[in-house]
Amino acid sequence: MEDHRDLNRDLRVFASDPLAGAGLPLWLPDGAAIREELQRLAKDLAHADGCVDVYTPVLGKRELFERSGHLAKFAADMFAPIRLGEDEVVLRPANCPHHALVYAADQHSYRELPLRLNELGAMFRAERSGVLSGLSRVRQINLDDTHVFCRPDQAAAEAARGLRTALRAQQVLGLRVDYARLSRRDDSDGWLGSAEQWRWAEDELRAAAGEVLAEAGLPLVDAPGEAAFYGPKIDLQVRDGRGHEETIATVQFDFNQPERFDLGYTGPDGRRHRVVMIHRGTVGSMERVVAALLERYQGRLPFWLAPVQVAVLPVGEEQDARARDLADRLRAGGQRAVVDHEGPLGARIREARRRRCHLIAVVGPQEAAAAAVQVTDVGQSHRGVVTVERLLELARLAHSERRRGLDWMAG
Amino acid sequence: MEDHRDLNRDLRVFASDPLAGAGLPLWLPDGAAIREELQRLAKDLAHADGCVDVYTPVLGKRELFERSGHLAKFAADMFAPIRLGEDEVVLRPANCPHHALVYAADQHSYRELPLRLNELGAMFRAERSGVLSGLSRVRQINLDDTHVFCRPDQAAAEAARGLRTALRAQQVLGLRVDYARLSRRDDSDGWLGSAEQWRWAEDELRAAAGEVLAEAGLPLVDAPGEAAFYGPKIDLQVRDGRGHEETIATVQFDFNQPERFDLGYTGPDGRRHRVVMIHRGTVGSMERVVAALLERYQGRLPFWLAPVQVAVLPVGEEQDARARDLADRLRAGGQRAVVDHEGPLGARIREARRRRCHLIAVVGPQEAAAAAVQVTDVGQSHRGVVTVERLLELARLAHSERRRGLDWMAG
Repeated sequence: MEDHRDLNRDLRVFASDPLAGAGLPLWLPDGAAIREELQRLAKDLAHADGCVDVYTPVLGKRELFERSGHLAKFAADMFAPIRLGEDEVVLRPANCPHHALVYAADQHSYRELPLRLNELGAMFRAERSGVLSGLSRVRQINLDDTHVFCRPDQAAAEAARGLRTALRAQQVLGLRVDYARLSRRDDSDGWLGSAEQWRWAEDELRAAAGEVLAEAGLPLVDAPGEAAFYGPKIDLQVRDGRGHEETIATVQFDFNQPERFDLGYTGPDGRRHRVVMIHRGTVGSMERVVAALLERYQGRLPFWLAPVQVAVLPVGEEQDARARDLADRLRAGGQRAVVDHEGPLGARIREARRRRCHLIAVVGPQEAAAAAVQVTDVGQSHRGVVTVERLLELARLAHSERRRGLDWMAG
Repeated sequence: MEDHRDLNRDLRVFASDPLAGAGLPLWLPDGAAIREELQRLAKDLAHADGCVDVYTPVLGKRELFERSGHLAKFAADMFAPIRLGEDEVVLRPANCPHHALVYAADQHSYRELPLRLNELGAMFRAERSGVLSGLSRVRQINLDDTHVFCRPDQAAAEAARGLRTALRAQQVLGLRVDYARLSRRDDSDGWLGSAEQWRWAEDELRAAAGEVLAEAGLPLVDAPGEAAFYGPKIDLQVRDGRGHEETIATVQFDFNQPERFDLGYTGPDGRRHRVVMIHRGTVGSMERVVAALLERYQGRLPFWLAPVQVAVLPVGEEQDARARDLADRLRAGGQRAVVDHEGPLGARIREARRRRCHLIAVVGPQEAAAAAVQVTDVGQSHRGVVTVERLLELARLAHSERRRGLDWMAG
C-alpha cells in the first residue's frame, strides 16, 4: 500500500513549492481533471437535493468571526487578521458565517423553507508546518459545503436527506464508510448553547440517522466530546491506507449561529421564529477526498475520474493523423485522451502505464485500414481489436454514468 | 439607464454586509446562477482552445511575490502579509506567479508547447474603501485567467488565438467592444525587461492583432504608458452605462516572469531555451462582467443567463400539481424555473416581472386539460398558448445554444 504522496510521484496530481508555501499545494493539470469531476459530482448531487448555488468571499471582517464565535473558540487555528485601512479582515476558518449573511440578506417566510445554500468554498487553517502532509493536511481547504436553513419541524428530515446524499456520494466514489459517529458534547465547559438545545438536536439527529443508517447497514457509534463547539453532528468515518481514521462527510446541527446572527423566518402566525441551521458536507474537501481516492485505488482511479482515460499510440508516422483524429473525437465526447507519438512503442506503453491510463489504444496500419484500434484495458482483463465507433460509445457511457470501467461484454 | 447597483435592488444578484466587509460582495442565489453560466462559458471556450485546468491557492509566501516583482511594483495595492510561524504569506495580487510555479513543477520539451493553463482564480486588491462600488470595484476579484507558455515562434499565433477567443466571448455575451488598445511602455522608468524585449513583444502583438481586429472591424488604438509593468498588452475596451471605459478582456506578453522564475524548455537542439508567457483574460472577472451585463441589458439578461427563466403560475390550487410538474421538467432539462402559488395572480405576475423572468407561464383549468400553458415572453412580443412539449423544447434549445431569447417562429 502506497500513500498518496508516494503515488503522486508517478501521477503528478499536485506539486508543492517552497515559494507557494507549505500546506498550499498546486493542483497540476492531471489533478485538476480529477477535481473537476468531483466538483461536478458535488454540484449534481446538491442540485438534485434542491440546493442553490452561492459564492462568498474567502475573507470577512474580524467582527464577522467575533459574531460567529470562531475567534473565541477557534482562534488558535485561524490565520492572523490583516489590517486594511481602519478595518481588520481575516481569512475565514469556515464558510458558515458567510452563508448566514446570505440568509440574512433577505426576508424569509415559513413557506420558502428549507433554503439550502451550496458552495465549493475555500477555508483556511493555520496548521503548524510540522503536521502538514500532501493533500491530506493543508492550510487552504476547498470544501463542498452546504448550509440548510429550515424550520424545527423540518430538521430531522433535512438531516436524513443530508446523510443519505453523503452516503450516496461515497458510494459513487467507491469509498467504504466504516461507521457513522454521533459526535455529542460531554460534561466539560465551552459548548455554545443550552443543555436543552443540545438534547433536542441530539435526539433529532439520532432519529434521522437511525433509518438511513439501517438502510445502509452501518453502525452508529456514540462519541461524547467529539461535537463541534456549536452543535452535535453525525460524521461518516473512513480509514486511509495506513489505518488512520478520517471524517469524510458530515451533517451538523447548529443552533448557535442562528442566535448570533439573529436568523429567523415569518411563521404562519405572522410572527418571527428562529430558524435551524444544518451544515452538511457531501463529497467532502477536494484535498482529502482526492488523497483518499488515490490511496483506495492505489492510483488506478475509476474510468470517469482518471486524469488520462485513453492514451492513443500510433505505431508509425503514417498513423499519426488517424491517432490524432481518434483523440479529437474522444475529447469532443468529453473524454480525456492523449496522443503520444515520440519514441519507441514499448517506451510509450510503459509511460501510459506509469500515468495509469485506463485504455491504451494502439493504431497500426491494419487497424487504420479497418477503422479500428488495438485496445488494452489496463485495469480489466480486456485486450483485443475493436472498432473506433464501439470504443467511443463505451468510453462515453462509462464516463457519463460515472462507472468503474468499460463494460466490454455489453451491447 | 440604471447602473448595476440600482438594478440589483430588484434583482438581488449580490448583497453587501458590513460584517463581510466593503468590497467583498456576497453572491446571492440569483447572482450565483448567472455566474455559473459564465464560468461554464469560460471553461467551454478555454477547453475548445486547448487549455487545461489547474487550481492554485489564493495565498503565497512573501518570497513568491518578491520573486515575481509584485511586491516591488504593486505593493500599494496588495494586502499586508500575514505572519505564520516563521513565514509570511500574502493574498495574491495576481494568479500568474502560481501558474509559473505549475509550469516549473515539470520538465518541458519544445514538442509539448504551447501549454495553456486556465483557472477561475481569486485575486485581491487592497482598494481604499472610498473607491469600492457594487461589483465593478471590489477587493476579491474572481478572474477567468489563462497563462500560455510557448516558444517565441508560437507567440504571435497564441496572441491571435487569445484575442480571437476573447472577441468570441464578448460576442456571445452581447457586450459591444468599443476598440482595442495596444498598451505599450513609455519613456519613463520602472518597466521590467530590456528595450529590445519590449520592442519584440510590441511588434509580435501588433502583428497578431492586425488580422484578428480587421476581421472584427475594430480599430487598434496606440496607448503608450498603459502597459503592465511586466510587458505590453492588447486590451478590449467597453463603456459602461455611464460612459466609463473599462478593460473587459486582455492579452498580455510577459518576458519578466519567465526570467524571474527561470522558466524554460528543451529545444530540438537539446539545449534549454527561455519560454514566452502570455496572460489572457477571455470572459474577464466575474464581478466586472456581471456588472457590465446588468447595465448593458438593464437587468433583462439573455435567456441563457437569466437567473429565473420561467415563472410557472397556477391559476388555482387545482393546477398546483401541473405547475410543479412543469417546473420539475424544466429543471430536469437544465432550465431555471420557479413555481409561485401564493396570493392573487396579478401580484404574482408583477413579482415575476420584477425579477425579470423571461417567460411567465400561467396554468389554468383549460391549459391543464390541454397539456398546454399560456405564455408571456416578457422581452419579446410573444403571447399565446403553447403545448408544454413545445415550451420545453424551445427553452432547452435557447439555453443550450446560449441564445438571447426563444424563437417562437422556428420549427
